[in-house]
Amino acid sequence: MRSKEFRSRCPIAGSLDIIGDKWTLVIIRDLFRDRHTFGDLAASPEKITTNILTDRLRWLEENGIIKKRAYQTKPTRYTYALTEKGEDLKPVLKALALWGERHIERAVKVTDNPVFQEKPSN
Amino acid sequence: MRSKEFRSRCPIAGSLDIIGDKWTLVIIRDLFRDRHTFGDLAASPEKITTNILTDRLRWLEENGIIKKRAYQTKPTRYTYALTEKGEDLKPVLKALALWGERHIERAVKVTDNPVFQEKPSN
Repeated sequence: MRSKEFRSRCPIAGSLDIIGDKWTLVIIRDLFRDRHTFGDLAASPEKITTNILTDRLRWLEENGIIKKRAYQTKPTRYTYALTEKGEDLKPVLKALALWGERHIERAVKVTDNPVFQEKPSN
Repeated sequence: MRSKEFRSRCPIAGSLDIIGDKWTLVIIRDLFRDRHTFGDLAASPEKITTNILTDRLRWLEENGIIKKRAYQTKPTRYTYALTEKGEDLKPVLKALALWGERHIERAVKVTDNPVFQEKPSN
């Protein structure tokens, strides 16, 4: 997004301008879980439609949050991976996960997944 | 929301089912900043429409994230405040703020606001 497209200079509102919807962070969750192809990402239990998935992948790439790499030609197929900017969303996912684990009745626990464990500081 | 309305049992997806849009967390941000009336909340720089604000306040109340209290009759006017469930969203706001401060070019810094400082553990 370009500066003038943000609703304000608040970094919370700005982050939501980029990732404030029901699907984007579900896709990013799956990239952290080593789902890297379109087919992998389309197979999540939330049943994302291929239209929304295509749209959100393009958006994430335009915003520097993921990058794609062709792994096959004829037809061309891509794998998708988080950039450093995308990896930096991990604390957002963890905070959402902790809130959901605490306040949503039938939610499973995911914050014990190694991806969410703090790295040792030394 | 009722259990069957969640897309999956993932607490990340579940949290996004409740607060995954561009506006809900902006309202919650303002409640943390001691904006408590409809007029206060409508005055944020992001220019939320009164229709969306009315809709999101009702949704947040239904989901136990805020509670309203009448402070005036004829006409009845309400103040809105976070419940404990709502207060528990602070780490989500902080994580979004940190990401925006780091990755959105013209974003101002908000995480030095006292509301985001850790409470001493004793």
